[in-house]
Amino acid sequence: DKEWKVIDYQRLERSYKFKNFKEALDFTNQVGELAEKEGHHPDIYLSWGKVLVKLWTHKINGLHENDFILAAKIDELTKA
Amino acid sequence: DKEWKVIDYQRLERSYKFKNFKEALDFTNQVGELAEKEGHHPDIYLSWGKVLVKLWTHKINGLHENDFILAAKIDELTKA
Repeated sequence: DKEWKVIDYQRLERSYKFKNFKEALDFTNQVGELAEKEGHHPDIYLSWGKVLVKLWTHKINGLHENDFILAAKIDELTKA
Repeated sequence: DKEWKVIDYQRLERSYKFKNFKEALDFTNQVGELAEKEGHHPDIYLSWGKVLVKLWTHKINGLHENDFILAAKIDELTKA
Protein backbone atom coordinates (compact mmCIF):
# COMPACT_ATOMS: atom_id res chain seq x y z
CA ASP A 1 0.00 0.00 0.00
CA LYS A 2 1.26 3.44 -0.82
CA GLU A 3 -0.41 5.27 2.03
CA TRP A 4 -1.39 4.92 5.65
CA LYS A 5 -5.01 4.02 6.24
CA VAL A 6 -7.06 5.12 9.22
CA ILE A 7 -8.91 2.10 10.61
CA ASP A 8 -12.03 2.56 12.76
CA TYR A 9 -11.01 6.17 13.41
CA GLN A 10 -8.57 4.84 15.95
CA ARG A 11 -5.46 3.46 14.38
CA LEU A 12 -3.12 3.87 11.45
CA GLU A 13 -2.09 0.94 9.30
CA ARG A 14 0.29 0.62 6.42
CA SER A 15 1.89 -2.39 4.81
CA TYR A 16 5.28 -2.39 3.14
CA LYS A 17 6.33 -4.96 0.55
CA PHE A 18 9.80 -6.49 0.29
CA LYS A 19 11.39 -8.97 -2.02
CA ASN A 20 12.01 -11.63 0.61
CA PHE A 21 11.75 -12.49 4.30
CA LYS A 22 15.16 -11.12 5.21
CA GLU A 23 14.44 -7.63 3.90
CA ALA A 24 11.11 -7.59 5.73
CA LEU A 25 12.90 -8.63 8.93
CA ASP A 26 15.51 -5.90 8.43
CA PHE A 27 12.74 -3.31 8.09
CA THR A 28 11.10 -4.69 11.24
CA ASN A 29 14.36 -4.02 13.08
CA GLN A 30 14.60 -0.50 11.71
CA VAL A 31 11.05 0.23 12.85
CA GLY A 32 11.82 -1.40 16.20
CA GLU A 33 14.90 0.73 16.70
CA LEU A 34 12.96 3.89 15.83
CA ALA A 35 10.16 2.84 18.20
CA GLU A 36 12.62 2.42 21.06
CA LYS A 37 14.14 5.81 20.33
CA GLU A 38 10.74 7.50 20.22
CA GLY A 39 9.36 5.59 23.19
CA HIS A 40 6.29 4.76 21.08
CA HIS A 41 5.76 1.24 19.82
CA PRO A 42 3.62 0.13 16.92
CA ASP A 43 2.46 -3.43 16.40
CA ILE A 44 4.47 -5.01 13.61
CA TYR A 45 3.11 -7.96 11.65
CA LEU A 46 5.99 -9.58 9.80
CA SER A 47 5.39 -12.15 7.10
CA TRP A 48 7.29 -13.31 4.03
CA GLY A 49 8.09 -10.18 2.01
CA LYS A 50 5.66 -7.99 3.91
CA VAL A 51 5.48 -5.87 7.04
CA LEU A 52 2.17 -4.47 8.30
CA VAL A 53 2.57 -1.65 10.82
CA LYS A 54 -0.29 -0.75 13.16
CA LEU A 55 0.00 2.44 15.13
CA TRP A 56 -2.13 4.00 17.87
CA THR A 57 -1.83 5.52 21.30
CA HIS A 58 -2.73 2.94 23.91
CA LYS A 59 -3.44 5.47 26.65
CA ILE A 60 -6.30 7.03 24.71
CA ASN A 61 -7.06 3.96 22.57
CA GLY A 62 -6.98 6.24 19.57
CA LEU A 63 -4.85 8.52 17.48
CA HIS A 64 -2.67 11.30 18.77
CA GLU A 65 -0.39 13.70 16.94
CA ASN A 66 2.58 11.51 17.91
CA ASP A 67 1.15 8.64 15.87
CA PHE A 68 1.24 10.71 12.71
CA ILE A 69 4.77 11.88 13.47
CA LEU A 70 5.94 8.30 13.97
CA ALA A 71 4.12 7.23 10.79
CA ALA A 72 6.05 9.85 8.82
CA LYS A 73 9.33 8.74 10.39
CA ILE A 74 8.63 5.10 9.49
CA ASP A 75 8.02 6.17 5.90
CA GLU A 76 11.35 7.96 5.96
CA LEU A 77 13.06 4.65 6.77
CA THR A 78 11.92 3.25 3.43
CA LYS A 79 13.48 6.15 1.60
CA ALA A 80 16.90 5.89 3.26
CA ASP B 1 0.29 -19.13 26.37
CA LYS B 2 2.12 -22.23 27.39
CA GLU B 3 1.26 -24.34 24.39
CA TRP B 4 0.72 -24.15 20.67
CA LYS B 5 -2.89 -24.04 19.58
CA VAL B 6 -4.24 -25.49 16.38
CA ILE B 7 -6.49 -22.91 14.70
CA ASP B 8 -9.14 -23.99 12.16
CA TYR B 9 -7.31 -27.30 11.70
CA GLN B 10 -4.87 -25.45 9.49
CA ARG B 11 -2.35 -23.47 11.43
CA LEU B 12 -0.40 -23.43 14.67
CA GLU B 13 -0.30 -20.37 16.90
CA ARG B 14 1.55 -19.61 20.05
CA SER B 15 2.25 -16.34 21.83
CA TYR B 16 5.31 -15.65 23.93
CA LYS B 17 5.45 -12.95 26.59
CA PHE B 18 8.44 -10.72 27.29
CA LYS B 19 9.15 -7.99 29.76
CA ASN B 20 9.53 -5.22 27.19
CA PHE B 21 9.58 -4.40 23.48
CA LYS B 22 13.29 -4.98 23.04
CA GLU B 23 13.17 -8.57 24.31
CA ALA B 24 10.20 -9.29 22.05
CA LEU B 25 12.13 -7.85 19.10
CA ASP B 26 15.17 -9.97 19.99
CA PHE B 27 13.00 -13.09 19.99
CA THR B 28 11.53 -12.05 16.63
CA ASN B 29 15.07 -11.99 15.26
CA GLN B 30 15.87 -15.39 16.69
CA VAL B 31 12.74 -16.84 15.11
CA GLY B 32 13.58 -15.05 11.86
CA GLU B 33 17.09 -16.47 11.81
CA LEU B 34 15.76 -19.97 12.45
CA ALA B 35 13.13 -19.51 9.72
CA GLU B 36 15.80 -18.53 7.21
CA LYS B 37 17.91 -21.54 8.17
CA GLU B 38 14.96 -23.92 7.86
CA GLY B 39 13.61 -22.29 4.71
CA HIS B 40 10.19 -22.18 6.38
CA HIS B 41 8.75 -18.85 7.50
CA PRO B 42 6.05 -18.26 10.09
CA ASP B 43 4.11 -15.04 10.39
CA ILE B 44 5.37 -13.11 13.39
CA TYR B 45 3.16 -10.56 15.13
CA LEU B 46 5.35 -8.38 17.32
CA SER B 47 3.86 -6.04 19.87
CA TRP B 48 5.06 -4.56 23.15
CA GLY B 49 6.23 -7.47 25.31
CA LYS B 50 4.60 -10.10 23.13
CA VAL B 51 5.29 -12.16 20.03
CA LEU B 52 2.54 -14.20 18.37
CA VAL B 53 3.87 -16.84 15.97
CA LYS B 54 1.59 -18.30 13.27
CA LEU B 55 2.80 -21.31 11.42
CA TRP B 56 1.44 -23.25 8.45
CA THR B 57 2.51 -24.62 5.10
CA HIS B 58 1.43 -22.25 2.36
CA LYS B 59 1.66 -24.83 -0.42
CA ILE B 60 -1.05 -26.99 1.14
CA ASN B 61 -2.72 -24.17 3.11
CA GLY B 62 -2.55 -26.43 6.13
CA LEU B 63 -0.30 -28.24 8.52
CA HIS B 64 2.58 -30.48 7.58
CA GLU B 65 5.06 -32.38 9.73
CA ASN B 66 7.59 -29.59 9.13
CA ASP B 67 5.33 -27.11 10.93
CA PHE B 68 5.43 -29.17 14.10
CA ILE B 69 9.19 -29.56 13.82
CA LEU B 70 9.65 -25.79 13.45
CA ALA B 71 7.23 -25.17 16.34
CA ALA B 72 9.39 -27.36 18.56
CA LYS B 73 12.53 -25.56 17.44
CA ILE B 74 10.97 -22.17 18.18
CA ASP B 75 10.14 -23.39 21.68
CA GLU B 76 13.76 -24.44 22.09
CA LEU B 77 14.81 -20.82 21.47
CA THR B 78 12.96 -19.74 24.59
CA LYS B 79 14.86 -22.28 26.67
CA ALA B 80 18.32 -21.26 25.47
